[in-house]
Amino acid sequence: MASTAPNRRLHGHAATRRIEFSETDLAGVVHFSRFFVLMESAEDEFLHALGASFTTDPDGNAWGWPKVSASCDYRRPVRYGDRVDIVLRVAARSARTITYEFSFRRDGEEVARGRTVSACCVRRPDGSYQAVPIPASLADRIETAR
Amino acid sequence: MASTAPNRRLHGHAATRRIEFSETDLAGVVHFSRFFVLMESAEDEFLHALGASFTTDPDGNAWGWPKVSASCDYRRPVRYGDRVDIVLRVAARSARTITYEFSFRRDGEEVARGRTVSACCVRRPDGSYQAVPIPASLADRIETAR
Amino acid sequence: MASTAPNRRLHGHAATRRIEFSETDLAGVVHFSRFFVLMESAEDEFLHALGASFTTDPDGNAWGWPKVSASCDYRRPVRYGDRVDIVLRVAARSARTITYEFSFRRDGEEVARGRTVSACCVRRPDGSYQAVPIPASLADRIETAR
Amino acid sequence: MASTAPNRRLHGHAATRRIEFSETDLAGVVHFSRFFVLMESAEDEFLHALGASFTTDPDGNAWGWPKVSASCDYRRPVRYGDRVDIVLRVAARSARTITYEFSFRRDGEEVARGRTVSACCVRRPDGSYQAVPIPASLADRIETAR
Repeated sequence: MASTAPNRRLHGHAATRRIEFSETDLAGVVHFSRFFVLMESAEDEFLHALGASFTTDPDGNAWGWPKVSASCDYRRPVRYGDRVDIVLRVAARSARTITYEFSFRRDGEEVARGRTVSACCVRRPDGSYQAVPIPASLADRIETAR
Repeated sequence: MASTAPNRRLHGHAATRRIEFSETDLAGVVHFSRFFVLMESAEDEFLHALGASFTTDPDGNAWGWPKVSASCDYRRPVRYGDRVDIVLRVAARSARTITYEFSFRRDGEEVARGRTVSACCVRRPDGSYQAVPIPASLADRIETAR
Repeated sequence: MASTAPNRRLHGHAATRRIEFSETDLAGVVHFSRFFVLMESAEDEFLHALGASFTTDPDGNAWGWPKVSASCDYRRPVRYGDRVDIVLRVAARSARTITYEFSFRRDGEEVARGRTVSACCVRRPDGSYQAVPIPASLADRIETAR
Repeated sequence: MASTAPNRRLHGHAATRRIEFSETDLAGVVHFSRFFVLMESAEDEFLHALGASFTTDPDGNAWGWPKVSASCDYRRPVRYGDRVDIVLRVAARSARTITYEFSFRRDGEEVARGRTVSACCVRRPDGSYQAVPIPASLADRIETAR
């Protein structure tokens, strides 16, 4: 079934950020943990472009996308004031997870490369989360976006 | 009524932190926003010492303490590796709020001074918060701790 | 001397932010410490508009703006996905400091109000900072911007 | 040569943290990016136990340990107030890098598992960093600690 086929790739969806002072550390560069926040910002913009968010699915129901795993390779120091493009790709999609790849680029050069796996969950009224299959409404929009 | 009298002071309740690498910025010092996180850590330890937390009152009920206001004066740069004592005092208590003062000290010298006002709220089942009077169980423990 | 007159007000310079998932806490709202980061973002954009930054003055020399004090009053809970305008005003300027006021607005309503005082410093080659008078190049641009 | 042999394992060096309110997000759990900060805290304590830090080698010279890569697998939600042990192991050591593995445990159960690779660098007077071989003084202490 096309909507759950792994390794399909979306055309890159890019978010752009100017690195803020508070994101740096005493070594003068962006703290390595901040790249994960930036990845999540790009994921958020991607969901937004699909009519959803981290809290609401395209039909308006409460959901969430807790991370199953996350990783990053750091290739160049990134500094305060740098403009960084974060290019998101859907690297794979299983029935219940989406694997995103993120290429951080400054002036076209890749400065870092990340990956996260997010699990589709419903949010129950008591605030807990349960993993569920990705709803067809989102799966279809991801395929259409390709 | 003693339990709501303003300007009563608790004996100082101190938390100690070693400043972490991630708390610094490119100027080589603790980012000014982190002092507010450290204040909250000290407030957390204070509530903990009273048998409560930011989510549960001494009787086990769901509550919360959103901030009404917060401020900090910065006197000396604080650096990675510094050991800082955060001395908390209850500067005032109204029916629904507690005003905390925080003295940040390194080797006995005050390096920063902060203040927060937290409002006592119940957490409703839907996750929203409503301001309520501070329960007698906590008010009594604060007075006893003086 | 006009360039050091206190209480001059700049026309509001606004930055806009969509609140990110990572800025929230378990109470479902923006953590109170994040407002200070958002204030600094607005200050950064303001300096940027004046041809400077937190690290470089309008003439390209190394400087910095450590905070002398910071405060915030919280009026409404702010949530993930909210669009917030941060309206910056220069509330006062002394020979060596600028006092900024920040009005956080959502749909025109003020949800928080902050204030920071930043001190003009030169950054020495060894990485330390020393307070100095605000250079005329910046002072003039602030006056012109009014 | 023993000091550069890969896959040597140190006995676990554990740091313990009580999860703070500010580390959570609106889903009620620790934000996934915070695990990387906690890993770095454990790395810091490990260096400290060896007579060093992120800024100073055992002989007092200026150095740094920028991350080459970082990853984390999330197995259980971790919540405010949880006590988490972070067990660090040196999984591998090359001439210029150390690979750390981190097991996050709550009540003995592994709730997350992380890995970082840090590169040994000298800090030059101008504040830049250059990769260098791990000094014998540290390599020996790591071997002795095994």
